[in-house]
Amino acid sequence: MNEQGLSEKEIFSFLENAKSEDTDYYRVLSSMCTHPHKIAVEAHRLFIEANLGDLGLFAGACRLEQEVVRMLGELLHAPSIVVPSGGSCESSVCGYLTTGGTESNIQAVRGMKNLVTTGKKGFKGVPNIVIPESAHFSFDKVADMMGIEVRRASLDSEFRVDLSSVESLIDINTMGLVGIAGNTEFGQIDPIDKLSEIALENELFLHIDAAFGGFVIPFLEKPQPFDFKVPGVSSIAIDPHKMGLSTIPSGALLFRSPSFLDSLKVNTPYLTTKAQFTLTGTRSGASAAATCAVMKYLGNEGYRKNVHYCMQLTEKLVTEARKIGFEPLLEPVMNVVALKVPNPDLVREQLLERFGWNVSITRIPRALRLVLMPHNTLEDIELFVQDLKKVTAEI
Amino acid sequence: MNEQGLSEKEIFSFLENAKSEDTDYYRVLSSMCTHPHKIAVEAHRLFIEANLGDLGLFAGACRLEQEVVRMLGELLHAPSIVVPSGGSCESSVCGYLTTGGTESNIQAVRGMKNLVTTGKKGFKGVPNIVIPESAHFSFDKVADMMGIEVRRASLDSEFRVDLSSVESLIDINTMGLVGIAGNTEFGQIDPIDKLSEIALENELFLHIDAAFGGFVIPFLEKPQPFDFKVPGVSSIAIDPHKMGLSTIPSGALLFRSPSFLDSLKVNTPYLTTKAQFTLTGTRSGASAAATCAVMKYLGNEGYRKNVHYCMQLTEKLVTEARKIGFEPLLEPVMNVVALKVPNPDLVREQLLERFGWNVSITRIPRALRLVLMPHNTLEDIELFVQDLKKVTAEI
Repeated sequence: MNEQGLSEKEIFSFLENAKSEDTDYYRVLSSMCTHPHKIAVEAHRLFIEANLGDLGLFAGACRLEQEVVRMLGELLHAPSIVVPSGGSCESSVCGYLTTGGTESNIQAVRGMKNLVTTGKKGFKGVPNIVIPESAHFSFDKVADMMGIEVRRASLDSEFRVDLSSVESLIDINTMGLVGIAGNTEFGQIDPIDKLSEIALENELFLHIDAAFGGFVIPFLEKPQPFDFKVPGVSSIAIDPHKMGLSTIPSGALLFRSPSFLDSLKVNTPYLTTKAQFTLTGTRSGASAAATCAVMKYLGNEGYRKNVHYCMQLTEKLVTEARKIGFEPLLEPVMNVVALKVPNPDLVREQLLERFGWNVSITRIPRALRLVLMPHNTLEDIELFVQDLKKVTAEI
Repeated sequence: MNEQGLSEKEIFSFLENAKSEDTDYYRVLSSMCTHPHKIAVEAHRLFIEANLGDLGLFAGACRLEQEVVRMLGELLHAPSIVVPSGGSCESSVCGYLTTGGTESNIQAVRGMKNLVTTGKKGFKGVPNIVIPESAHFSFDKVADMMGIEVRRASLDSEFRVDLSSVESLIDINTMGLVGIAGNTEFGQIDPIDKLSEIALENELFLHIDAAFGGFVIPFLEKPQPFDFKVPGVSSIAIDPHKMGLSTIPSGALLFRSPSFLDSLKVNTPYLTTKAQFTLTGTRSGASAAATCAVMKYLGNEGYRKNVHYCMQLTEKLVTEARKIGFEPLLEPVMNVVALKVPNPDLVREQLLERFGWNVSITRIPRALRLVLMPHNTLEDIELFVQDLKKVTAEI
């Protein structure tokens, strides 16, 4: 740090310079984030100093968080939406706003662990959870942190978790299962209703990672069951900062039962509140305001239009790709396409180097992974497929 | 969520209403956060969509993060500040920006655990860390999550960690120690140099929680040793969103050695980067820009002025309190005062109810806890002490 500060002009010239190195999402087909909605940005600015970690001081921002949790609960068919009582923000909530999917997944597993270790079921060894092989890498962090075993069930030919594989991995030390509603690589949805049956039969928790799919599936023409309507689902992660069009950091974790949240509490002696069930301490009230604003502005209708648009892009991409001889690994379930091309790693590299397209790669099998987001256009898709044709022709 | 969206006007009237319930930090003496600096807010807005979780797409924001880590390394006397090489943001960093002190503390302990379990030292039981009784409640979260034991050393009469208590708690399964540089309740600084000797002698890690003190101690007239200048210190948590005057969420975790960061890595198959050592996935680039901007704008001189001002408030408070017969538990080391008053819980309640002052309480012993922040004024302090006199006279 300099001894003397720089001038505002110097600083903004430095910042603008850095900004020019960032993508503006033009030609980005690899990200599950997009431009936040204008109204989310404005609301974020209005609450820029609000700290949800100190609810007594920020009762208004807290009310916005509660309102978001209520709206998300409604969206995800939470059995009893607990509406906050005036001023009190501590109790009777069924969820909270996280920094994103990773925190939500960590906290869901922490909740399982705490409820199980304080519960009746007697574990003899290391507790474990069973997740699909397609689970997000945040579960590698869970495995690394929690002192639990993370078991990976294989996928079926459609990249959904294989139910017999799940069943074969369950033992006396299993706490819960994880299902993915919109997995990162393929956009596929696990058979949540079947996982629910297995969970109920074996008295296991069932956490759903719908970080991406949570703002997509409910707005599809034929939504598959994935939320609290499915009786065995105990918690859901959903990210407003992905297809919810809110600002970063905006994640959410919802529980079927308040006992889950209770199990995460630690005492907070020197705050205006007495206990805290969140992972982080100081938390962005700006994100809560942003999410609240964009959800109220768009409504179900707005999100439905958004998803419809992204699915149009998706269909266009598949159609155009087929015209040049490339098939998707699976018929897209949501706005993610895994495209079979020869030598995908090289294609990826060339697409970026020659034409500036950012795409990514699925792990097994290796294929081009393309996420169609609101920042893309139908013209983009045409251009992309033309460029893909050029690149693959020369490989 | 409504079927149809609301209008922008309806939404902002709803938001403004909630905003009016938030504190504007007027009469707040309980918070370690304050108004973010204007320039931080502007920079935050400029980078509102930047996602540090996808560095390939946001190379500019990544460069700002690296610059902040470099400046913080300089401030905290990191032995070798690794300056980022053009474009590449993955390797050779000695720290990263977190969501705040809690994530920083969790990750520091996770790093210890990973380095120890992959290292030579053979543990026979559950790994443990030794922390001061005065450690922040985030260590309760660490204890709850990590499958390790958290041992609490008692404090001396000056509310510093008692060194013989620390030594008595170390055994073969101890991974590391934690020292606090500016504890939340008393603003006291543990004897970091002595903890360092114990750590080096016993081959233990030493993590310093300077979430609050990191932007205070270096700017005090007689700073105590607490940072990487002390040879045994292996990691430091410092929060720009507290006395650094940046926006929420802005924390930072710095390591003496890159091996610490390496130990936190998980693979990130479908991103533009290959591995991730952060706790969260999607991360706010806006916070990095905000922190970078305010640090460059204020420089050492600006922060020195800020700390000097807060210490003036602190001295004023102690002087005025003594005039009405109340003594601090300890001579304030930084801008936190623990004030001995009769029946502090009732005094706290009355101060809020009758005069709108937000104060908090230390745990052991129970005393009024007052944090003097840039949002307070010398006139506030006079008013506060007058109100304190009224309240205590009638109790």
